[in-house]
Amino acid sequence: MGALDEGHFCSELENGVKLGCIELSFEEEPETIAIEDAVKVLMQGLGEDVNREGLKKTPLRVAKALREGTRGYRQKAKDIVQGALFPESGLDNTVGHAGGAGGLVVVRDLDLFSYCESCMLPFQVKCHVGYVPSGQRVVGLSKLSRVADVFAKRLQEPQHLADEVCSALQHGIKPAGVAVVLQCLHIHFPKVESAFLDSNHQGWVELLVSSGSGVFENENANLWADFLNLLRFRGINVEKNRMRDSSDQHWCPSRSPSGAIAASKIESVNQGMVTAVASILRSLGEDPLRKELVGTPARFVKWLMNFQTTNLDMKLNGFVSDTVDPLKLNGDGCKEKKIHSELNLSFWSQCEHHLLPFYGVVHIGYLCTEGFNPVAKSLLQSIVCFYGFKLQVQERLTRQIAETISSLLGGDVIVVVEANHTCMISRGIEKFGSSTATIAVLGRFSTDPAARAKFLQSIPNTAVSGR
Amino acid sequence: MGALDEGHFCSELENGVKLGCIELSFEEEPETIAIEDAVKVLMQGLGEDVNREGLKKTPLRVAKALREGTRGYRQKAKDIVQGALFPESGLDNTVGHAGGAGGLVVVRDLDLFSYCESCMLPFQVKCHVGYVPSGQRVVGLSKLSRVADVFAKRLQEPQHLADEVCSALQHGIKPAGVAVVLQCLHIHFPKVESAFLDSNHQGWVELLVSSGSGVFENENANLWADFLNLLRFRGINVEKNRMRDSSDQHWCPSRSPSGAIAASKIESVNQGMVTAVASILRSLGEDPLRKELVGTPARFVKWLMNFQTTNLDMKLNGFVSDTVDPLKLNGDGCKEKKIHSELNLSFWSQCEHHLLPFYGVVHIGYLCTEGFNPVAKSLLQSIVCFYGFKLQVQERLTRQIAETISSLLGGDVIVVVEANHTCMISRGIEKFGSSTATIAVLGRFSTDPAARAKFLQSIPNTAVSGR
Repeated sequence: MGALDEGHFCSELENGVKLGCIELSFEEEPETIAIEDAVKVLMQGLGEDVNREGLKKTPLRVAKALREGTRGYRQKAKDIVQGALFPESGLDNTVGHAGGAGGLVVVRDLDLFSYCESCMLPFQVKCHVGYVPSGQRVVGLSKLSRVADVFAKRLQEPQHLADEVCSALQHGIKPAGVAVVLQCLHIHFPKVESAFLDSNHQGWVELLVSSGSGVFENENANLWADFLNLLRFRGINVEKNRMRDSSDQHWCPSRSPSGAIAASKIESVNQGMVTAVASILRSLGEDPLRKELVGTPARFVKWLMNFQTTNLDMKLNGFVSDTVDPLKLNGDGCKEKKIHSELNLSFWSQCEHHLLPFYGVVHIGYLCTEGFNPVAKSLLQSIVCFYGFKLQVQERLTRQIAETISSLLGGDVIVVVEANHTCMISRGIEKFGSSTATIAVLGRFSTDPAARAKFLQSIPNTAVSGR
Repeated sequence: MGALDEGHFCSELENGVKLGCIELSFEEEPETIAIEDAVKVLMQGLGEDVNREGLKKTPLRVAKALREGTRGYRQKAKDIVQGALFPESGLDNTVGHAGGAGGLVVVRDLDLFSYCESCMLPFQVKCHVGYVPSGQRVVGLSKLSRVADVFAKRLQEPQHLADEVCSALQHGIKPAGVAVVLQCLHIHFPKVESAFLDSNHQGWVELLVSSGSGVFENENANLWADFLNLLRFRGINVEKNRMRDSSDQHWCPSRSPSGAIAASKIESVNQGMVTAVASILRSLGEDPLRKELVGTPARFVKWLMNFQTTNLDMKLNGFVSDTVDPLKLNGDGCKEKKIHSELNLSFWSQCEHHLLPFYGVVHIGYLCTEGFNPVAKSLLQSIVCFYGFKLQVQERLTRQIAETISSLLGGDVIVVVEANHTCMISRGIEKFGSSTATIAVLGRFSTDPAARAKFLQSIPNTAVSGR
C-alpha cells in the first residue's frame, strides 16, 4: 500500500490555536477515567454485562466521543479569529456599501452538530452566518465555521448557541454587524410503550432560531431581508415570524409535556445512574448545578432506560403468541409463493459501541403462499421495535429480525435495514450525509438472486426518512 | 461566553492511531519550512509581492493545508482496523447469508476529497463501501470511512484509490469480500483564452470507478447486483458498464488533448516554479520521479499561471474600450430606470490565502434608462473573468466587479457572487456543502431596499452550479 511509516504529526487548528501536546496520554487523563467509570455504572444500570465483547471498550469510546464532542469548552473563539483578519480596501464610509468589503458576506449550509443541554443527545445544526465588514478588514471565511463550531461543541440550546456565535463574532471581528440563522434538528424521544402502536414516531423536532448584532440588531432592518434573500436562493426558506414563535418553548422532546418525567416517576429513576451522568458533566467541564442542567442527568437516564431489554422480552412474547400461530403459517407449501413486502418500518436503537442512537427504516420481504393472508404490519413493526430497543449493532439487528420472522413464517425472508448512525456524525469522522444499509437473506432469498433483486427494486428511491 | 481556559488536548484517531506528540512545533518542522520556501517561489513566479498583507501567511497556510490534506502518507490502514473488529454470531456456514452478520453491510455517501496526482488539485469523492462479514466478526462502521480516508489523503488517481481502499479493507478485515464504488468530481481547467468567449467552461469531469475483492472479485457476481441495488434506493445510479469505459483514459483535464502541455510550450514553463513544486512533493513524502508524478509539477505550474494577472490587464483594457463608451451610457438620467440583470455568469478564481481554487457564479443587476440597450453579456462575462483570474478573495472580487461596472454604467449596480471554496472542503473544517455569498451594492441599490429585494428575488432558487 506504499504507506510510509506513520510519522509524528501534531494536530492543531489554524492560526496558532493548538490543541496542544501533553504528557499524559488521553487514556490516562483523570477526566477520561472518570467518564469511563460513569459509563460502566450506566451499562450496569441497563442490566448489561460490561465485560462482554462489544461492550468492553465502550466506556473508553464514549469518553473519547464525549470529550471530542465537547471540545468547545477548551477553545476560545478569540484565538481563532485573531490572525485571520485581512485588510481589504473599499471599506470606508465614502464607498458605503460598496464591494464585498462593505457589503454582506454570507457562508451558508455549514453542517454542525451539538449536544442538547436538556437531554445530552446530539442534535444537528445547519448554520448560516453573515456579517457586514467594517474597519477595512475581512475575516477568513473558514473562521466563521470554526467559531460556530467552538460553541456547537458544548452542551447547548439552539437560541443560546445562535446568540453565543453571534456575540463571539461581533466581538472578535468588530464588523458592522453579524447575523446567524440556525436550523436545528433534534431526534424524537421514542417511547417504548407507544412505539408498538404508533409507527409514525419517527420524525424530528425542528427549530429555526436567529440572532443579530450591530446592523442586524433590529429584526426589521433591511439587511435582514438581504440576508434571508441570500439564503432563499440556496433553497433555505426562512420566515422570521416562524422563528420567533418556535423559540418560546422548550424544544427538547424530553421537556415536552409527554416527554417530561412526572414528579411521581422521578423516584423510580436509578439514582446511581443519575449521579454517574452528573459526574460525566463535571468531567466535561460543565457545572451540573447550572440551572439548565439540573434535570439533565435524570432525563438522559430516562432515555437510556428505553434500551433496557428485560421487560420488553416479556411484552413481545405475549404479543406474538396472541397474534400469530406459527403452525398456521406453515401450511400448504406447494402452491406458488409470492413476495409480500412491508417497507419503511421505522425503528430506533442504541449503538452499543458509543451509547448513541441510530435510527431509520426496515424493509421486510417474505415468500408466502398465494391466497394466504400476509402477516399484519403491526406484528412486523413490533418485532422491529423489540430488537431495536436494546444496546445493538445494526448487523445483529438485521440478522435477529430476519431469524425471528423466518422462525414464524417458515424460512424465505429478506430484511434490509437502512440507518443513520449518530456516532458517524457526532464523532471525529463527522460524515453527515452517510447512511448504512445491511441486508439479511434466508431460505430462497439466499439462493435466488432474481428474488433478491425483485425485492430490492421494490424499495422506493428515497433517502432514509427524517433526512 | 463562559469558555474555560483552553486546556491541553492531544488529538488522536481512534484505536491508538495517534497523530502523536512531537518536540518541534509544526512551524519548525523541516518539511513545513521547505514547503513554505517553495510556495514563495510560486508566488514570485506569479509576479506577486510575497510581503503584501493577505499573502504574508499564505506559505504557512499552504504548507498546513497540504500536509493535512496528505496525512494519509503517515497513516496505516492496518492500525485503524485493528481493535475495531467485533465478534458477532451467526456467521458460520450453517447460517449462510443470514443476518447482517453474514449479509452485506454497506456504508453509503461518505464525503471525501483527495488530491489529483496529475495536477495536484483537490477532487471530491462520494465513497460507497460494502463488505460481506465472515469469520464471525464485523468491523466498526466508522472504520470503513477512516480507512478510505487514509488513501484519499494522498495524491491519487480514482481507480488506484478504489483499488487501495478495497485491498486494505480486504487485508485488514479478512471478510468474504469488499466492494468499493467512488463517484469522483474533478474541476475543469478553465483556460483564460477560452473563458472570455465561452461561458460554459464551468462543469465537472465526473468519473465513476469500482473495485471488488473476494466474493466481489467477479464483476458479474450476484452480490454486485445487491450492492448496486442498495445504492440505487439512495438515489445513486450506477451502471457497471459506464464505469469501465470511463476509466480507460486519463480523467484529469490537464491530461486531455486540449489541456496537455504541448512539447513546444514546455520550455516556456518557469523551471524555478517546477522545481519548487517537485520539492513540495518530496516534503509531503512522495517521490517526484514516480512515473505518474513526472509531469505533475509542470501541470500544476501551468494551472497556477492562469492566475498571473499582468497580461490580462492589457487584454481587458482593449476589449472594454472597443465595446462600450461610458459617455453614451450616462445620457438621459431623467427617464424611469429599470433593472437589467445578467444572472449565473460563471467564474474561476484562486484563493490567495490558500492557493486553492474557488468558483461559482456572479449575478449582476444595474439600473438602465428605458429604451436603452442593455450591456452585452459578453462584456460582463469578460469583466467577471478578468477579476477572477488572479489571486483573489471573494469579497474583493465582488467589490471590483461592482466598481468596474459602476464606472462604465454610471452608478446603480448590484453584484452577488456565489462561490464554493475548495479551501472549505480540503482543509481541516471539511465543510462539503457550504457555499459563500457576497454582495456589493452601489448607487440606488445601496439606499433602496426594495430595489435590492427585487433583484435578489429574481435569482433562481438553485444551488451553486456545478455542485
